[in-house]
Amino acid sequence: MPKKIRLGILGGGGDSLIGVLHRVASHINDNYQIVGAVFNPNHEQSVAFAKEIDIPTNRIYKDFDTLIEEELKLPEDERIQVCSVQTPNFLHFPMAKKLLDNGFHVICEKPMTMDYAEAKELEAAHKKSGKVFALTHTYTGYPMVRQMREMIKNGELGKIHKVDARYYQGWINPIIHDKEKRSSVWRLDPTKAGISSCMGDIGVHAFNLVEFTTGLKVSSLLCDFNYLYEDNKMDVDGTVLIRMDNHVKGVIRASQVATGEENGLAIRIYGEKGGLVWEQENPNFLYYFTEGKPLQVYKPGHPYNSEVSLSGTKLPAGHPEGIFDSMANIYLGAAKAIRGEDYNDCEFPTMEDGVRGMNFIEGTVASHKQGNVWIDMD
Amino acid sequence: MPKKIRLGILGGGGDSLIGVLHRVASHINDNYQIVGAVFNPNHEQSVAFAKEIDIPTNRIYKDFDTLIEEELKLPEDERIQVCSVQTPNFLHFPMAKKLLDNGFHVICEKPMTMDYAEAKELEAAHKKSGKVFALTHTYTGYPMVRQMREMIKNGELGKIHKVDARYYQGWINPIIHDKEKRSSVWRLDPTKAGISSCMGDIGVHAFNLVEFTTGLKVSSLLCDFNYLYEDNKMDVDGTVLIRMDNHVKGVIRASQVATGEENGLAIRIYGEKGGLVWEQENPNFLYYFTEGKPLQVYKPGHPYNSEVSLSGTKLPAGHPEGIFDSMANIYLGAAKAIRGEDYNDCEFPTMEDGVRGMNFIEGTVASHKQGNVWIDMD
Amino acid sequence: MPKKIRLGILGGGGDSLIGVLHRVASHINDNYQIVGAVFNPNHEQSVAFAKEIDIPTNRIYKDFDTLIEEELKLPEDERIQVCSVQTPNFLHFPMAKKLLDNGFHVICEKPMTMDYAEAKELEAAHKKSGKVFALTHTYTGYPMVRQMREMIKNGELGKIHKVDARYYQGWINPIIHDKEKRSSVWRLDPTKAGISSCMGDIGVHAFNLVEFTTGLKVSSLLCDFNYLYEDNKMDVDGTVLIRMDNHVKGVIRASQVATGEENGLAIRIYGEKGGLVWEQENPNFLYYFTEGKPLQVYKPGHPYNSEVSLSGTKLPAGHPEGIFDSMANIYLGAAKAIRGEDYNDCEFPTMEDGVRGMNFIEGTVASHKQGNVWIDMD
Amino acid sequence: MPKKIRLGILGGGGDSLIGVLHRVASHINDNYQIVGAVFNPNHEQSVAFAKEIDIPTNRIYKDFDTLIEEELKLPEDERIQVCSVQTPNFLHFPMAKKLLDNGFHVICEKPMTMDYAEAKELEAAHKKSGKVFALTHTYTGYPMVRQMREMIKNGELGKIHKVDARYYQGWINPIIHDKEKRSSVWRLDPTKAGISSCMGDIGVHAFNLVEFTTGLKVSSLLCDFNYLYEDNKMDVDGTVLIRMDNHVKGVIRASQVATGEENGLAIRIYGEKGGLVWEQENPNFLYYFTEGKPLQVYKPGHPYNSEVSLSGTKLPAGHPEGIFDSMANIYLGAAKAIRGEDYNDCEFPTMEDGVRGMNFIEGTVASHKQGNVWIDMD
Repeated sequence: MPKKIRLGILGGGGDSLIGVLHRVASHINDNYQIVGAVFNPNHEQSVAFAKEIDIPTNRIYKDFDTLIEEELKLPEDERIQVCSVQTPNFLHFPMAKKLLDNGFHVICEKPMTMDYAEAKELEAAHKKSGKVFALTHTYTGYPMVRQMREMIKNGELGKIHKVDARYYQGWINPIIHDKEKRSSVWRLDPTKAGISSCMGDIGVHAFNLVEFTTGLKVSSLLCDFNYLYEDNKMDVDGTVLIRMDNHVKGVIRASQVATGEENGLAIRIYGEKGGLVWEQENPNFLYYFTEGKPLQVYKPGHPYNSEVSLSGTKLPAGHPEGIFDSMANIYLGAAKAIRGEDYNDCEFPTMEDGVRGMNFIEGTVASHKQGNVWIDMD
Repeated sequence: MPKKIRLGILGGGGDSLIGVLHRVASHINDNYQIVGAVFNPNHEQSVAFAKEIDIPTNRIYKDFDTLIEEELKLPEDERIQVCSVQTPNFLHFPMAKKLLDNGFHVICEKPMTMDYAEAKELEAAHKKSGKVFALTHTYTGYPMVRQMREMIKNGELGKIHKVDARYYQGWINPIIHDKEKRSSVWRLDPTKAGISSCMGDIGVHAFNLVEFTTGLKVSSLLCDFNYLYEDNKMDVDGTVLIRMDNHVKGVIRASQVATGEENGLAIRIYGEKGGLVWEQENPNFLYYFTEGKPLQVYKPGHPYNSEVSLSGTKLPAGHPEGIFDSMANIYLGAAKAIRGEDYNDCEFPTMEDGVRGMNFIEGTVASHKQGNVWIDMD
Repeated sequence: MPKKIRLGILGGGGDSLIGVLHRVASHINDNYQIVGAVFNPNHEQSVAFAKEIDIPTNRIYKDFDTLIEEELKLPEDERIQVCSVQTPNFLHFPMAKKLLDNGFHVICEKPMTMDYAEAKELEAAHKKSGKVFALTHTYTGYPMVRQMREMIKNGELGKIHKVDARYYQGWINPIIHDKEKRSSVWRLDPTKAGISSCMGDIGVHAFNLVEFTTGLKVSSLLCDFNYLYEDNKMDVDGTVLIRMDNHVKGVIRASQVATGEENGLAIRIYGEKGGLVWEQENPNFLYYFTEGKPLQVYKPGHPYNSEVSLSGTKLPAGHPEGIFDSMANIYLGAAKAIRGEDYNDCEFPTMEDGVRGMNFIEGTVASHKQGNVWIDMD
Repeated sequence: MPKKIRLGILGGGGDSLIGVLHRVASHINDNYQIVGAVFNPNHEQSVAFAKEIDIPTNRIYKDFDTLIEEELKLPEDERIQVCSVQTPNFLHFPMAKKLLDNGFHVICEKPMTMDYAEAKELEAAHKKSGKVFALTHTYTGYPMVRQMREMIKNGELGKIHKVDARYYQGWINPIIHDKEKRSSVWRLDPTKAGISSCMGDIGVHAFNLVEFTTGLKVSSLLCDFNYLYEDNKMDVDGTVLIRMDNHVKGVIRASQVATGEENGLAIRIYGEKGGLVWEQENPNFLYYFTEGKPLQVYKPGHPYNSEVSLSGTKLPAGHPEGIFDSMANIYLGAAKAIRGEDYNDCEFPTMEDGVRGMNFIEGTVASHKQGNVWIDMD
């Protein structure tokens, strides 16, 4: 593997959740090094954040335009190669465009732009630039989603005839029912959030998965939104009938008022020979239905998976990817102890755990060898 | 947050799975920076690997002893602060001991040592050193395992009276039934693998979780191993009856011949007032039973969880921690494209996905506003 | 409980699955006794079937009209009180109507009639008759469906705002793709099957559950069918957008080409305060979501359930209703043995099982009392 | 099928749950007719109960001995052929023995006897009698349990090497912690309940399933009970290590203090080539693990199942057997209405449901045919 790619970050500072997600993801495969950033419109906070995450501060710029200007002065082999755009939605388009126009690759959060016209304009800029543009429709990175796509591509479902995707959340529920709140929150203000709340924020993920997994394009759609209240201006729920090529029909359902639902993205695809079902909250399980045979449950990391699914799996079968995070929590606990900070005694296993473990193992061997007798532990 | 902790790595080079896990985990919270290492007994390979993951090679030492020697010559504020020991099992003890003796903190893979005597010796060295020693019993890092511990601590189960842990894998199955293989594999050779295979490798994790979650100590045990074949010298399966303080009894079951099982670690704890069940392969779900009430399912990231559970959760409820990895797969795809390498067209979403997404969103709004009519997509 | 109700059966003879279902159901609560029937258009077969299930043959009539005529001659306290109509769909209306007109109660399979006009006519006949008319929308009998209705009625979801029902099957799949078959099967022939296949056969169940559980009425609908092939005349898949009173919106999805799906009826209802999800293939589990609290899983037979849910549960919590059938299988095995017929040796547990069971229990007591030693079984 | 078998019932009157279960089961396959009984030690109550369930009262005897005596006077082709013994445990042995000695077949609830000596004596009586003796280990009647047995028999797991069964309930929990209650309840009184509570009542079911599914015999066992309190005389929890023929080992776990558990019977069997897992509370799902292949989920009613599994399934795939009960609830509601009794309006679907259903179906057809427009319902 060659040297790490020089990465610039736009936005994502402080407590930004999307910031953590991108940063961790950029580290995971040892491919990227953050060399420059504008984490925050406030330059001081931007620098402070760089210190907090221990990144050299010399290329923490005061704003996006300065970043472009200064980086272009650097020799090509030092310059930022790709910028990750994690700013508020309305900035995605101008930043991505200027980056492409100036010869930078772009990794961009979704929604890509505020409307379709901007999208088409950005597409043109991209074509002209010859640079890489990656949109972070994160769910397409799951090994089992990729496996789904490959199985369909390989004809394991036969001709597709039915698609059904759902993205149900309940988070807007405490807001929508309060007249004061629903008229003031930026998410439900069309001047700030764009033309659609529910469909623009989450429905589009479901749409993307439908096209990603089937390899088919939606040709036409019919949609019904629900605003719940007369005075609410943005959709908080909607159902879309879709038609795809080749007599395929389907439905995309999205809701932000599905009370109690967390991040309920799920997709069902049926074809002549079989069906596939996947749910984001149990992302390691892919259900494969076939006529007259038992349901099969595919999981990551097995040789029966496609190459591209396996290439996205780093650990042996049965280890959910969450184990990275679990291990990270232990490293975090140890970091606190090393720095002499307070920590909860459950934050990392200690010497005592190790001693007891060896005591246990020796005990089991002794008990077995002595004819299954009781052994006291120290 | 202060500057990053200077981390040394012992082992974990090349394709080592445990190496990836530790490296990613050390990055996730922006706490550690790898400054030195002996990734491999072969120095050339060690240096090559450092280059591959883009770490400066000046502190890639030819062996462990040199690492200690050279690091001690550095000023304290440049020196490695903590070493992560990821070498084969028999090296854990000598390395950890020498590190502690020389004033380094230690993060150590399990099993901590080869036997109980070594463990006691290491414990003494640790006490004398005053340094941090963290053992990577990874499963204790899961938010829901920590939540389990806190709920029990807070009395939500009342007095505990029954514990039941299981760790079933099937991976040794293709080896054990082949006489040739079972007599040659190092895992089943007591001179290399230590006194126990199944109980030492995985049973001890189940044991650790029992003590971790209940806060109680196992006082005595009775064990029965299964070797399956007369000529096999190591346990590949075993069941342990346990007694804990206060009339608590329970059972720990471990197997490496549970054919088809991947990494089936599960724990059930029952007390006077309720029960808790957790399974590693669905780590975001914690099942809470109480007399006469509906089963409750706890998930990470909700305010109803304990502080320490929440501190280990970085994303909103409903986002499995695996989403870090999913996003990382997209960054990996983009990296391939940026470097001009081959990649599968599903490895990252592109401009086209973005354009179609905006087309979709505008289409849904138009369909709804025009009275739920069909809208063609471009 | 007074004497059993005198029940007449129309249809349901031979291997009819619907016949078994009705017959068993009528026995379960000791309420009904079958006293007369026309099991089959062929009178000989009808009589043979009566003998097979050991029902007196004197009131097995040659046809439906004769049944009415002859029963009316009997004194009222001997006469059939209620007829269960299990004939092909097109006979439901004329039979039900004539029964009501002649003073019989009616239990009728669905679809109630072939079209809406017949339905309205039957409704008028029913009103005039003063008799009981029960339509066997079977799924409303599940304890957890009834619990769902009661919880919504009691306001546990607050004001409803979203409903979503699915009924996916895959059974028509092997037929629809074969041009010969799809043009000849009665199910896809509008002259025999009525105006709709998929929506009429299964979609209507989903519709019924939506209205049953919410207590709200669908006020308008918009539907898109899929016929899959140009030459196919009946819907085999469809999606219906629905609007209910009070700004409630929702979707009903039905398919007979969801390959591999068995009987996938599921319903999700969301309201201001919570959500409820139920799936027919796991009918004993009702999932209750509430904002900010752990998911709760309701199961039958617990005091926390409503009275009407409990009244439909005959066994202690944790015993799926399927246990009736499991026990029935054992009775069936014993019947074969008693009659000297062939049977598989697993069809009922024998004396040997009983002896070994007692041997086992005594062994466990002995082992424990002697200090956890090994005890040989005989 | 020949005429129904003449069945006598001993016990099971009034609200007896076991009584309902046996009665319903005996009806389900149209094989049995109840012709005589002693439902209750109190003859008046026995007769009253017979009237309640509408059974002729002429053969409701005043006690068991009279039943034997009088039945023997009847001609053989009128006489009770088989008696179902549902009395308290201590009566199982004397009744079963006398029945066999007098030439009656026996269906007997478990535990078969109070101890092993009685069991051996009964075995001898059975052998001498030449009659059928069926013990109602109900769980062996589930189609998926039978499928499990057949798959193992057919070698689909290869040589078995590990068995693991669990039967966890929590019902005794509210009793055991109350000193007053635990010293007075008959279940924990050895003079009434026999030698074992937990192992005798439920552990023996787990034991039976282990032998039933594997076809192997337990050769020796080692057991540890938990009484929880010094003053409690009966086991309320226990774990049993078992050894079977051929180096098979395993564990049986049973508990009545697993708080919140309902009827948690589960079994896991692993062999050289695969594993099988089944759980009683989801009895229609059988999980089949094989090395290197996706998990397969077997369900009842499919042609891929064995003949004996299919013979125990009466309905198409996807219809849980609980649907019998669901339909029965609707018949019950209709019965109440027919008798003019009070009923909840959800107890059976009515004419209105039928009318609305037809309105819905016609609406969907109209909406589709008119180009997916909104149609109002009446």
